[in-house]
Amino acid sequence: MFLRNLILALARNKAIERFVRTSRITRGVVRRFIAGDTLEEALTVAEDLAEKGFKVSLDLLGEHVASEAEADSALEEYLRLVSAIAASPYFGGWMPERINISIKLSQLGAHLDEKRCADRLEKLLAAASLHPIFIRIDMEESAMTDLTLRLVIEAHNKHKNVGTVLQSMLLRTPSDIEELIRQRIRVRMVKGAYLEPESVAFQKKRDVDQAYLACACKLIRDGVFPAIATHDASIIEKVEHFVQLEGISPGRFEYQLLYGIRRGLQEQLKKRGRIVRVYVPYGSSWYPYFTRRLAERPANLLFFIRSLFSR
Amino acid sequence: MFLRNLILALARNKAIERFVRTSRITRGVVRRFIAGDTLEEALTVAEDLAEKGFKVSLDLLGEHVASEAEADSALEEYLRLVSAIAASPYFGGWMPERINISIKLSQLGAHLDEKRCADRLEKLLAAASLHPIFIRIDMEESAMTDLTLRLVIEAHNKHKNVGTVLQSMLLRTPSDIEELIRQRIRVRMVKGAYLEPESVAFQKKRDVDQAYLACACKLIRDGVFPAIATHDASIIEKVEHFVQLEGISPGRFEYQLLYGIRRGLQEQLKKRGRIVRVYVPYGSSWYPYFTRRLAERPANLLFFIRSLFSR
Repeated sequence: MFLRNLILALARNKAIERFVRTSRITRGVVRRFIAGDTLEEALTVAEDLAEKGFKVSLDLLGEHVASEAEADSALEEYLRLVSAIAASPYFGGWMPERINISIKLSQLGAHLDEKRCADRLEKLLAAASLHPIFIRIDMEESAMTDLTLRLVIEAHNKHKNVGTVLQSMLLRTPSDIEELIRQRIRVRMVKGAYLEPESVAFQKKRDVDQAYLACACKLIRDGVFPAIATHDASIIEKVEHFVQLEGISPGRFEYQLLYGIRRGLQEQLKKRGRIVRVYVPYGSSWYPYFTRRLAERPANLLFFIRSLFSR
Repeated sequence: MFLRNLILALARNKAIERFVRTSRITRGVVRRFIAGDTLEEALTVAEDLAEKGFKVSLDLLGEHVASEAEADSALEEYLRLVSAIAASPYFGGWMPERINISIKLSQLGAHLDEKRCADRLEKLLAAASLHPIFIRIDMEESAMTDLTLRLVIEAHNKHKNVGTVLQSMLLRTPSDIEELIRQRIRVRMVKGAYLEPESVAFQKKRDVDQAYLACACKLIRDGVFPAIATHDASIIEKVEHFVQLEGISPGRFEYQLLYGIRRGLQEQLKKRGRIVRVYVPYGSSWYPYFTRRLAERPANLLFFIRSLFSR
């Protein structure tokens, strides 16, 4: 966890950001994790994954917009994504959720004006529900948790095509799980990739992992079609064991893994007949997403460092 | 085909109908194919199937209502079904289509007044799209084909959660397939279980089978998430062969089989990792459905006859 926190801290350094964002050296490794800058590139990657039998979640990168105008244009981009999905021969037409959309509420300006963010979310959900496309509200840093859950629950009262994400590293998560199960809102379970203080989050990997397994099993047993989003093969094996023990059908949940990370594991889970959804990020605002990926897995960092020296 | 046509003709005899409908002797065998008289019984069967990893399509039996009032009450029953599904811990909440609803347009009075039927269908689709529930419009006898396709295409312009069924025995079907592929409307492919004249339908089993395979392959390659609805293991093997040859992911279509028929085959396809949806009929108007099942498979008829003598 020390290395993780160090990277997350370093990532805030502007000089480092400038280097990573603009250097040609880093472009190759960025492309491993980011589908492209444009919607069209992202859709090509998504269709290729669908062809191979994966489900997909598309995420237009971006968070904490600086103005209402930026939030408006993020909404426009997402509506454009909804239309592009509806027109795709792979994803258009009413079919069992081959593709989802992921979005962060700080992209829609939740931190600027909650009410206007709720209006934008409502527009997106209404447009998406016609096709139908499920919208996953990503979870951000802990300062956003309350706001995010409030907006998700409010939106879910009207549109059912919305779910969210909980992080096992947060101490509050077990009680949030209870609430979302009660509301029958779909949850993606992640460990959490933000730098969080001791007062709100576990600091030891072991504690985060232990909490993850407990949360995942609870959701699989009592929740609505949860997403088990982890690259941790040891946790996945424990989840598989739990499911077998309880006689739970593997169709009652899905695994989610990130584009470019542990592709062998993705393939292997698919071959075992599990539903595997690949989270595909795209867009020009990839820096925060990218650094969180480097921080959370030594293998990703190693891959990055190696690529810096291999040219 | 001779035996099939004989049974379909005999089924129209009122004395035979009275015996089958009211005798305690036939109750057991009826229960093998019909989930129950009530919505609650049907939902229990559906949840049990979901628990085992099957997808489900629920069908409230009934067709060719005699009055607008009967069509209204069929709509009410279907709206009640939508609510019950939304409240079910197995099916409620936005998830990848564990349950569908099947309906016949003659239940909604299409043969009485096309416009009023369209209004009822619109109400059902609007209610179902909120959850979201996909509505499959069953295909009826050939006199209904034009009317059914017209109403489905019209409804699909507004609501995407609707698809229909085509029958390989009909000579017109290849051109209907082209049209529904163009409209990106989901199709369930069946052989056809109605007594049809030579002018519109193949009369030889071999022709119907051959047409079935061609239609199924066409839909799998070019259509939107088609349903391959057959109990014919030899056709299923040929479909599997085609899919493998073309490198098509088995997630791009689903098999559909009827409740109580070839349960071993259902289990086996599920174990192979195929999506298998079981069509579960319920309700008190089960007689026409039941006799079509007896007519289409000697094994079903044998099972029926044996049960008459085994008491």
